[in-house]
Amino acid sequence: MESIKAGLLGFGTVGGGTYSVLRRNQEEIKRRAGRGIEVARIAVRTPAKAQAALSAIVTQEAGAETALAAGAGSLPLIDSDFDALVRDPAIDIVIETIGGTDRARELVLAAIAHGKHVVTANKALLAVHGMEIFQAAHSKGVMVAFEAAVAGGIPIIKALREGLTANRITWIAGIINGTTNFILSEMRDKGLDFATALADAQRLGYAEADPTFDVEGVDAAHKLTLMSAIAFGVPIQFDRAHIEGISKLDAIDIKYAEQLGYRIKLLGITRRSAKGIELRVHPTLVPSSMLIANVEGAMNAVAVNGDAVGMTLYYGKGAGAEPTASAVVADLVDVTRLHTADPEHRTPHLAFQPDQLSDLPVLPIDQITSAYYLRLRVADEPGVLAAIASLLADRGISVDALIQKESREGEGETDLIVLTHGTVEGNLRQALAKIEALSSVKSPVSLLRTENL
Amino acid sequence: MESIKAGLLGFGTVGGGTYSVLRRNQEEIKRRAGRGIEVARIAVRTPAKAQAALSAIVTQEAGAETALAAGAGSLPLIDSDFDALVRDPAIDIVIETIGGTDRARELVLAAIAHGKHVVTANKALLAVHGMEIFQAAHSKGVMVAFEAAVAGGIPIIKALREGLTANRITWIAGIINGTTNFILSEMRDKGLDFATALADAQRLGYAEADPTFDVEGVDAAHKLTLMSAIAFGVPIQFDRAHIEGISKLDAIDIKYAEQLGYRIKLLGITRRSAKGIELRVHPTLVPSSMLIANVEGAMNAVAVNGDAVGMTLYYGKGAGAEPTASAVVADLVDVTRLHTADPEHRTPHLAFQPDQLSDLPVLPIDQITSAYYLRLRVADEPGVLAAIASLLADRGISVDALIQKESREGEGETDLIVLTHGTVEGNLRQALAKIEALSSVKSPVSLLRTENL
Repeated sequence: MESIKAGLLGFGTVGGGTYSVLRRNQEEIKRRAGRGIEVARIAVRTPAKAQAALSAIVTQEAGAETALAAGAGSLPLIDSDFDALVRDPAIDIVIETIGGTDRARELVLAAIAHGKHVVTANKALLAVHGMEIFQAAHSKGVMVAFEAAVAGGIPIIKALREGLTANRITWIAGIINGTTNFILSEMRDKGLDFATALADAQRLGYAEADPTFDVEGVDAAHKLTLMSAIAFGVPIQFDRAHIEGISKLDAIDIKYAEQLGYRIKLLGITRRSAKGIELRVHPTLVPSSMLIANVEGAMNAVAVNGDAVGMTLYYGKGAGAEPTASAVVADLVDVTRLHTADPEHRTPHLAFQPDQLSDLPVLPIDQITSAYYLRLRVADEPGVLAAIASLLADRGISVDALIQKESREGEGETDLIVLTHGTVEGNLRQALAKIEALSSVKSPVSLLRTENL
Repeated sequence: MESIKAGLLGFGTVGGGTYSVLRRNQEEIKRRAGRGIEVARIAVRTPAKAQAALSAIVTQEAGAETALAAGAGSLPLIDSDFDALVRDPAIDIVIETIGGTDRARELVLAAIAHGKHVVTANKALLAVHGMEIFQAAHSKGVMVAFEAAVAGGIPIIKALREGLTANRITWIAGIINGTTNFILSEMRDKGLDFATALADAQRLGYAEADPTFDVEGVDAAHKLTLMSAIAFGVPIQFDRAHIEGISKLDAIDIKYAEQLGYRIKLLGITRRSAKGIELRVHPTLVPSSMLIANVEGAMNAVAVNGDAVGMTLYYGKGAGAEPTASAVVADLVDVTRLHTADPEHRTPHLAFQPDQLSDLPVLPIDQITSAYYLRLRVADEPGVLAAIASLLADRGISVDALIQKESREGEGETDLIVLTHGTVEGNLRQALAKIEALSSVKSPVSLLRTENL
């Protein structure tokens, strides 16, 4: 059977990685898919650069002992005409790897309008414009596959959308941004502050020159929003996510957390209750004995809890050319296998049938339930602890653990660390307002959330 | 749309769990699958017992606040006519949960012959008769789904067969038997010997009255054989697997391993090299810092290495009524979504197209490559260490770490523990034959394999 033809928008890290993996493993992929998958056309801003990169891939491969299947030597057309690619009648599948939300949206919608299936790694695009894109794809009867958009090569979208369909999924908690996990690992291992660890990450290629999307939690929130929709059968609601990054995280809190038996991870957490859905990204204390607390460096891991299966966890590389390409190519194989199937019987884009989404609201952060880590700077004098404990107790908040540090000679102040049991955040905030008004409390309370999963 | 009709063979742990999950989550499952899934008929040896169990499930559910969808109140026909069920024209999918290999084979083949899709949790059946069953299913154009056969609720078959299709998979290493992992955790935590830990596991319901299949590694080998076939595109070759269980594992080796920074796990390992495929189940030393070394109790975890994605890991409950049901029902949803698709375009049963299997041989155990842990009982006298090290060096085997225990007063003998670097097992065995012939070596060498993954 003739190869299925893909067109590649962009030839950067993900685009180049996809081409390279498809070419290197073409025989094995064909043995699985029953049909070859060929990149027939590439659109990029500077074709000469892409041509050079592509030649390097082909040369490297020919140098290795890879047997080239007959015909696989034919090279794709490379030009800068993105619009022509998405309209090209010879192209069955468009692979979008240009990133961003505006031009990518135009091109993906145009590809759909021309009856192409789409594979994308673009979480920002889907978190912001996903509902529009999936609606268009549904109307046109084409697939938009996006395994690579969440957690790189880990097949977490497939697990949620197909592997756990028996379950009422209750929560997901994931380390879904490698940059921040690398920085947090460095801060803990080497006792660094955030700025130093970030500079290290940039030097080593784990963080971009402008790291804002990563370190402020926006990238993780994009991914979390997609998982939340798929897990709970609700629309994609990125604008409702509560997002806190790690740039304000104090090294001292990592140290105190460790003393209490916890590690701090930037978790994306989404949980369903009768009241609504929690959708939040923030630094989180996790017991160090848990598997997810031991995910270090740039690795990703997603824990999913379902009522039948209990907790399952998925671990692997969340970024990089080849891990991301692994997910892109898996989607290409899925599309190749399924493109002749009746569109109504394919797995729905968002796991649930499009007319079956729930309107369960996303809860504002003051309505979520969590346990908390509080660090207070207090006067080293009698009665302080009693006053604080009493204000917490007034609102029904019980204390799980507590450390009071010895004050340094002559300072007259000390750090008090409190771990609370679970409570509604608004309730805790009210207690904190009263606690911060105490004359013995010397600065605003540092608050972090704790999850025992 | 009318519900798809399933017939259930057996109503024990897995059958009952499947019915219970399908019923409890029927609305959510329907929102995903686009169509209800109904167990319309059940065949069991003692219908009265199944009737009572079913009534208990229905009553319990009605007691909870589960809203029953209209029509879901209709109860399945229960009788003891297995043969009639697999022929019943009203049944679209047969769910086999009776276990065993003979009667199960007959019934599954009969169901296929009558054009039914089959979902099964029966790893023994597929490890032994899988090639025949998948061939029959392929000829008839029906699906045989078996996610529940490996690692319970963890969607590892889907990950291997669909999620990692971009990759040349290089190896899999899994904790795929909860009973043995529970026993090993108990032995390490509490310093118990095997017999005591097994008795505890039996008392707590983690081991069966006859634990042979679990503790001798047969169950793990069934599962490993299936994963190996899917990962590498080779036939199912259970009879070629090398199988060692944990019943002969000495508590002292767990202790020494720990002192060297390792934990002992019963791993199923399959690895592909140019020479062939390794397919082996045995107690294995794994560095304690690795995630898979920290999988404790009855939990399962499977690590998979692919050339593009790197190492990914999948963790969860590998047994029990509801985790297994989670996988069975996921398969039911897949079949419901895909049963109208062109059979030639569905995911192949064994991941690769049936005419595209490789004949790469399974390597005999003396041709595998591994690092080793050796415990020797030696005379406490000068020159012993030099003699042993020299016999290893003669065969090019280098020593990674070594502990010599102080001998107890007056005993004149001591334990010598050697960790080797990687070598071919046959080579090591030849060195060991010479070492065991030394007069200063007092008993046969205890040998375990070490994997740094």
